[in-house]
Amino acid sequence: MSKPTIKDLARHLNLSISTVSRALNDSYDVNAETSYKVKMLAKELGYSPDVYASNLRSRKSKTIGVVIPEITNSFFSQAINGIEDVARKQGYHVLVYLTHERYEQEVSVSQLLLDGRVDGVLMSVSNSDCNYRHVELFRERNIPLILFDRVFEGLQTLKVTTDDFQSGYNAASHLIEKGCKHIGYTTFSKYLSIDIRRKQGFVEAAKKSDIRFKEIDCTKDRWNNIQSLNKTLLSIDAPDGIFTPVESLGLLIYEVCSTNSIKIPHQLKLISFSNLPSAPFFNPSLTTIKQPAIEIGQYACNALFKAIKNTFLYDEQEMALPSSLIERGSTQ
Amino acid sequence: MSKPTIKDLARHLNLSISTVSRALNDSYDVNAETSYKVKMLAKELGYSPDVYASNLRSRKSKTIGVVIPEITNSFFSQAINGIEDVARKQGYHVLVYLTHERYEQEVSVSQLLLDGRVDGVLMSVSNSDCNYRHVELFRERNIPLILFDRVFEGLQTLKVTTDDFQSGYNAASHLIEKGCKHIGYTTFSKYLSIDIRRKQGFVEAAKKSDIRFKEIDCTKDRWNNIQSLNKTLLSIDAPDGIFTPVESLGLLIYEVCSTNSIKIPHQLKLISFSNLPSAPFFNPSLTTIKQPAIEIGQYACNALFKAIKNTFLYDEQEMALPSSLIERGSTQ
Repeated sequence: MSKPTIKDLARHLNLSISTVSRALNDSYDVNAETSYKVKMLAKELGYSPDVYASNLRSRKSKTIGVVIPEITNSFFSQAINGIEDVARKQGYHVLVYLTHERYEQEVSVSQLLLDGRVDGVLMSVSNSDCNYRHVELFRERNIPLILFDRVFEGLQTLKVTTDDFQSGYNAASHLIEKGCKHIGYTTFSKYLSIDIRRKQGFVEAAKKSDIRFKEIDCTKDRWNNIQSLNKTLLSIDAPDGIFTPVESLGLLIYEVCSTNSIKIPHQLKLISFSNLPSAPFFNPSLTTIKQPAIEIGQYACNALFKAIKNTFLYDEQEMALPSSLIERGSTQ
Repeated sequence: MSKPTIKDLARHLNLSISTVSRALNDSYDVNAETSYKVKMLAKELGYSPDVYASNLRSRKSKTIGVVIPEITNSFFSQAINGIEDVARKQGYHVLVYLTHERYEQEVSVSQLLLDGRVDGVLMSVSNSDCNYRHVELFRERNIPLILFDRVFEGLQTLKVTTDDFQSGYNAASHLIEKGCKHIGYTTFSKYLSIDIRRKQGFVEAAKKSDIRFKEIDCTKDRWNNIQSLNKTLLSIDAPDGIFTPVESLGLLIYEVCSTNSIKIPHQLKLISFSNLPSAPFFNPSLTTIKQPAIEIGQYACNALFKAIKNTFLYDEQEMALPSSLIERGSTQ
């Protein structure tokens, strides 16, 4: 079966090629009945436009790209659901690209997206570098780019985040209120905006209450993190409370505590950034800082469509949607 | 800044356009040093090929599409990591498309992928229809398509699954061994291959042991499911053990039991399909059927590249990788 063309559709329906084309592209000047007929026939015959040829003409792909560092993280999966909500209503497709926290992969994906296959990009950056030349190219090519959650400080565009400093401050204050005398913060990446800001808030609260605090060096390597946590939690100077800025480290602390028979919350109180739907069912249930993930996705995507439709680029600005601390068993 | 072309690269490096092109495409007949020089300059100048123009010529996008029903499910997030492992080694990009369990969205994404923007497709189907005309079109256009986990029975291609019937059988047998006298199965979709097969195995084991069993009707609607579970679990004829074939329903049963003060495992034993890394930390820890998610992704992706590189399409065949039952507190 040869691939049906727009001409075949027009001939079958006794319409002009231009009418068929406008019907397929949801043009406002084609009536609903005609549009329906064209689409039904297109579906029946298995017609699809040649995107490469048509994009050479229009440079509109009706597609946005979403670049995220990892997929096994409930913040990102929920943010993507928010993004897709908005995109679907606009009749756009969403392509998801993963960088697996690798800077080279982020650069490579960015190169790919510069070629016009998407009309705009939403990105949450990887944790391994702070050089952002690769994303400045979007601006030079007039492709709207909006950063969300993990951002490059100083990049000229809109950044949609949460109140990271305040959340870190609140987490430390909560541990102190619950009686902790020596609190730990698990760093994740010295380059990452969210890590830097959450730690600043945490340190500020500890200093204000004159409470000892400690940094626990973690990375993206699981075995390194287990060693680092073991060393800290089994030392005679172990902290009695920990705040971790990423979900995966929260889970790992449960694992390390279980292996070493350290009782949460009696020996160690724990609060973790996380949107895990299962946090209430943990043993003990996990106190979390919950980000407005769906709302961040929706806000960023709405802002992106504003830029795409009105062909403008954002200046440097930030929109921070507040997170909330949900107290559960792990800090009681 | 105007977009640099391949001519600019050739002029800068005093090389022929053809050499530069072959260097960028990793051709075996360009030496490593030249290839390195070309790529470094390309990176520096922000060069990217015009994919639409170059695809009109070569029809190779160096991209595969992955279509999945949802992202907030640890099986899919792990399977995608397996797929990306393989694709990265082949120098391919992976595009992820979500259908959100909506059949119309699956049809629409399939239409999009038929236009040549990907060299092959991996798909796990949505739960709302069993009509597969839209995916037969891939075969007609010579685009390799491989199904994984959730498949269309009867479609002529390779399907990479787990041993669903056996897993259902093992789950029921485990509940019976643990003393259950009346076991429930939460259906999810009457169209879905995994649901049908897992239930068949479950029913077979119950019948063999002459144990009463019950179907609990669930759908993709959370509120409907809460009502359905409440009705079943609060009735005088409530089951004393449940097996659920999807992760999200496992979590929901913890929620419903917590709301109604039903004690797991004393009043209700629970076993759930799930690859959740946090299952050991639940209260009580959750007995799971764990799929070889990463391996399923790797196997399917390797098979896809075999088809892409050797330009063939698979006949009807299935490869089932075994799952394992991990006993924990929820069935003790």
